[in-house]
Amino acid sequence: MNKLLIVGTVAFDAIETPFGKTDKILGGAATYIGLASNFFNVDAAVVSVVGEDFPKEYLDLLESKGVNIEGIEIVKGGKTFFWSGKYHNDLNSRDTLVTELNVLADFNPVVPQAYKNSDVVLLGNLHPIVQSGVLNQMTEQPKLVVLDTMNFWMDCALPELLDVIKRVDVITINDEEARQLSGEYSLVKAAAKIHTMGPKYVVIKKGEHGALLFHKNEVFFAPALPLEEVFDPTGAGDTFAGGFAGYIAQSENISFDNLKNAIIYGSNLASFCVEKFGTERMENLDKKEVNVRLKQFKALTQFEIELEE
Amino acid sequence: MNKLLIVGTVAFDAIETPFGKTDKILGGAATYIGLASNFFNVDAAVVSVVGEDFPKEYLDLLESKGVNIEGIEIVKGGKTFFWSGKYHNDLNSRDTLVTELNVLADFNPVVPQAYKNSDVVLLGNLHPIVQSGVLNQMTEQPKLVVLDTMNFWMDCALPELLDVIKRVDVITINDEEARQLSGEYSLVKAAAKIHTMGPKYVVIKKGEHGALLFHKNEVFFAPALPLEEVFDPTGAGDTFAGGFAGYIAQSENISFDNLKNAIIYGSNLASFCVEKFGTERMENLDKKEVNVRLKQFKALTQFEIELEE
Repeated sequence: MNKLLIVGTVAFDAIETPFGKTDKILGGAATYIGLASNFFNVDAAVVSVVGEDFPKEYLDLLESKGVNIEGIEIVKGGKTFFWSGKYHNDLNSRDTLVTELNVLADFNPVVPQAYKNSDVVLLGNLHPIVQSGVLNQMTEQPKLVVLDTMNFWMDCALPELLDVIKRVDVITINDEEARQLSGEYSLVKAAAKIHTMGPKYVVIKKGEHGALLFHKNEVFFAPALPLEEVFDPTGAGDTFAGGFAGYIAQSENISFDNLKNAIIYGSNLASFCVEKFGTERMENLDKKEVNVRLKQFKALTQFEIELEE
Repeated sequence: MNKLLIVGTVAFDAIETPFGKTDKILGGAATYIGLASNFFNVDAAVVSVVGEDFPKEYLDLLESKGVNIEGIEIVKGGKTFFWSGKYHNDLNSRDTLVTELNVLADFNPVVPQAYKNSDVVLLGNLHPIVQSGVLNQMTEQPKLVVLDTMNFWMDCALPELLDVIKRVDVITINDEEARQLSGEYSLVKAAAKIHTMGPKYVVIKKGEHGALLFHKNEVFFAPALPLEEVFDPTGAGDTFAGGFAGYIAQSENISFDNLKNAIIYGSNLASFCVEKFGTERMENLDKKEVNVRLKQFKALTQFEIELEE
């Protein structure tokens, strides 16, 4: 079984959407990625940090989904990273209400010995120095390294970000971030420029408008599934990345054709994530539902035009 | 050869984008639709109105593209409809600078005798009373009627718009208009509600984010092709509608599967339209280029995931 190493936050979230609000609930990029990895035949491990206030039941949940949690440090007397946000009416944008870094402020990731030779590494959105620090601990070059990041690091830690971008195979960012990072408005040109920074593959996430996968001169598009109800977008991008990396780790195939399938899988899982608050839908999702929706993705996108010569 | 009847504006446009500006050039929905219909084996005719100031060379251009112009009334002493607009930096929104209705204010469409039994009718964006007036002149029920409209008519002539919507098979509107017309935010719910108003098929145009085709519980998505340069979005929606209707008229097949192909064809032609100012790219486009891009649409969207049971 191939190993998938996941680095990212395990956290408390408090979320407000037009449809309701939650108290502190389970959140964090690595949590969503870990839950997504459960749908693949992979040996997944999370490297993260939490405080002593973090409920054991949340860690048990990750373990019950087959995620190795040896690399989640529990800081004695520490408080867990907390994020609170409020979504606007169209759910496409949100305001951050509270960010308490807490134990994340001094996070020094330690990769468990058994995962230093992981096949696929997914560097969730964190300070680029933390992301580089994980790569430095690998004893073998992973077959694929996927980096998720955001505009915050472009603003505050660009040199460090560019350093880690050089070292990865895939970068996943949203359309605005791709434009900021490249200085190009056209996403085709932006992807081409980001290729020259290091990543062979550029994944541009467009939320409800789907995701683009660029590789050299090739491009592939995975739409978001049109849904009757979108309840809470929190974690959708992480779930997408988790589905993407999990599929690749399972199949051990990093061809462009297989990466196409991987972004379809990522979009598929993300389409469930948004249907309930927080991690609720992902906790109770089963593989049959995923397969039904995969057929819907096929119906949504596949067509048969005969090309005239 | 099947007949395609096109009703819409033939006009002057003056366009400003971040990349340049034009004087008065050839424009109008029916112009773009007519140019798009040229890529199909159909007998297309335009019903419209222009003033005496309208250059004969523009009419000759349409005729040279195989479009019958018998139904374009030339009003003696009249002035042609003129629209001027300025696009914002992201090209996704624009301000209208000038709208001079001129001869369009009293437009009373007359369908040429030979096209009163057209197979497909495309009602371009016009006052819904004009659109109904065209349907009233048909001597045989068309196999398919496609209606394009916009929020302006929802604001100013909703009862008349609802009357014509009842009579059509396909409606094409953008996402905001679908929300306004239905009162539903979710596009899935919006389409379901619009189905109950009459149209069996609902096409929701999302510009650079592609187009959705809804039919009962089925949905299909055609992405926009990611382009290196988008120069001028004017006419892209009309070109899309023209490609859609032209493909259906040619194939004489109104199954859902064939309508999927039709929106891919529409997206394909629209992807060319935006590459130059106004009608320039469409005037000089050849079928080989269209076929090359059709292959790109296939590469962009087709994937092979084996479904596990």
